[in-house]
Amino acid sequence: MPELAAVNGRISPIDEAKISINDRGMVFGDGVYEVIASYRGRLFLFDEHLRRLRRSLDAIRMEYVEIEPIAEQMNYLFERAALPRAKVYLQITRGTAPRDHAFPVPTRGPNVIITVREVHEIDQAKLDRGVACITHRDIRWGRVDVKTTNLLPNCLAKQAALDRGCFDAIFVSGEGIVREATSANLFAAKNGGLWTHPTDERILGGITRAKLIELARPKGIEVREEKFDVDFLLGADEVFITGTTTEVLPIINVDGRPIGGGKPGPLARRMLALLTEWLLMNVDS
Amino acid sequence: MPELAAVNGRISPIDEAKISINDRGMVFGDGVYEVIASYRGRLFLFDEHLRRLRRSLDAIRMEYVEIEPIAEQMNYLFERAALPRAKVYLQITRGTAPRDHAFPVPTRGPNVIITVREVHEIDQAKLDRGVACITHRDIRWGRVDVKTTNLLPNCLAKQAALDRGCFDAIFVSGEGIVREATSANLFAAKNGGLWTHPTDERILGGITRAKLIELARPKGIEVREEKFDVDFLLGADEVFITGTTTEVLPIINVDGRPIGGGKPGPLARRMLALLTEWLLMNVDS
Repeated sequence: MPELAAVNGRISPIDEAKISINDRGMVFGDGVYEVIASYRGRLFLFDEHLRRLRRSLDAIRMEYVEIEPIAEQMNYLFERAALPRAKVYLQITRGTAPRDHAFPVPTRGPNVIITVREVHEIDQAKLDRGVACITHRDIRWGRVDVKTTNLLPNCLAKQAALDRGCFDAIFVSGEGIVREATSANLFAAKNGGLWTHPTDERILGGITRAKLIELARPKGIEVREEKFDVDFLLGADEVFITGTTTEVLPIINVDGRPIGGGKPGPLARRMLALLTEWLLMNVDS
Repeated sequence: MPELAAVNGRISPIDEAKISINDRGMVFGDGVYEVIASYRGRLFLFDEHLRRLRRSLDAIRMEYVEIEPIAEQMNYLFERAALPRAKVYLQITRGTAPRDHAFPVPTRGPNVIITVREVHEIDQAKLDRGVACITHRDIRWGRVDVKTTNLLPNCLAKQAALDRGCFDAIFVSGEGIVREATSANLFAAKNGGLWTHPTDERILGGITRAKLIELARPKGIEVREEKFDVDFLLGADEVFITGTTTEVLPIINVDGRPIGGGKPGPLARRMLALLTEWLLMNVDS
């Protein structure tokens, strides 16, 4: 079955889907998004993504957007595309209006864009062997906890990593605090415990991150949501990044320095196993 | 004559102009823009805008884009629209590609969007009486000197100002440094001299700002491109903001506190006169 798009309910192949050049997402990045993956024909953690979407919409003052009909559209398009392993992308913008920084008056209906695509799984080799990252100064705006499409700094950092033969970039604040990767959260393991940046305005609180923390604690794995610096990162036993399609990916090298002997460690493997187990139990229930 | 759009050379009314939902400007804010105003049928400071465009493109690693044919398209559309007082908007994105933070490989042709619209002049009453502003914490990203479409914080700040009955918001850093308005630069006048934030990565170096400095100095008006704080702003004799369509607009109140007695001052008036004079001399030459 094909990959599909829906723009305000109008369904088409993705390549034919278009939006006004006056869409405020296009002109100002004035909108929010979500990416949801499916397993065995079900959207994984759909409600959690919708809750984050609600929070994002409220944060940019689009509290008037009703999510339920949008969720129905997403489900409909997902089922119609019938891809075995899909990712559903949703983008909601503040509508189409002549260019003006002020919000349109009267409020325009939002533009709602949904696509369903195949997930390109991360190479098994990358999962088995781990990947290398660079650190990159975090110069993103001060509300990256809101999932907006103001993502140019993320694109530039990701490309900077690729240019140096690395998989991704890890954002680090001016004070040396380790935040997250360009589209994934980051965990460091030390002495059997896990550290990850707290969910304040400086990271995007990942759905996978939250689920992993929830799964780890009952297994006796201590998770500290605390800030840590680059020295701590480089001295960690393991580092891994997490996300909706990233899942749990070991980082074995940062800025050319090996992490934990330059090989994936047991905690990354265990967290991926916990996630996969939870997933299989829950998508079949 | 009508307002017009051109998307990759295809001309249409603006409302009919569309772009792929996979355009990277739409998905990531991955692109740059310029706005150029016309006076008496000529584009004002066109070359200066094109130089800044070159700098913006280079900064986001689109150095491969050739500007000359784009400038020709802008001129063509501007002439065809034949509006008495027009603003030409140009947006260049990193093209259409399936969503991936990394740059598309091979490089895609950029998407080039041009619109020509009527300028909605600022009310004469606003120019005569001045306007009120709020201050607003500057949480924009660290490269606002690059004219990208990652403009959501600007939109939110502008709207916050309107909601409080003010015209615009003035961005102030965490340390209290006054930067600029949401789409205009800012000058403070004190003892006959002018202060404005230096052109580093924290403000967008305006074309009108640069022209005003160039015009002021030979007239014996001292201009200091130096940082100053909110106390200095509130204690200034005059404050005004400048931009392509804003020109020179007096600010007479900030956060409810009157500036310079709550009336526009002589230096704002003089700077607008110098700009207008220069303009008339140069568009007719």
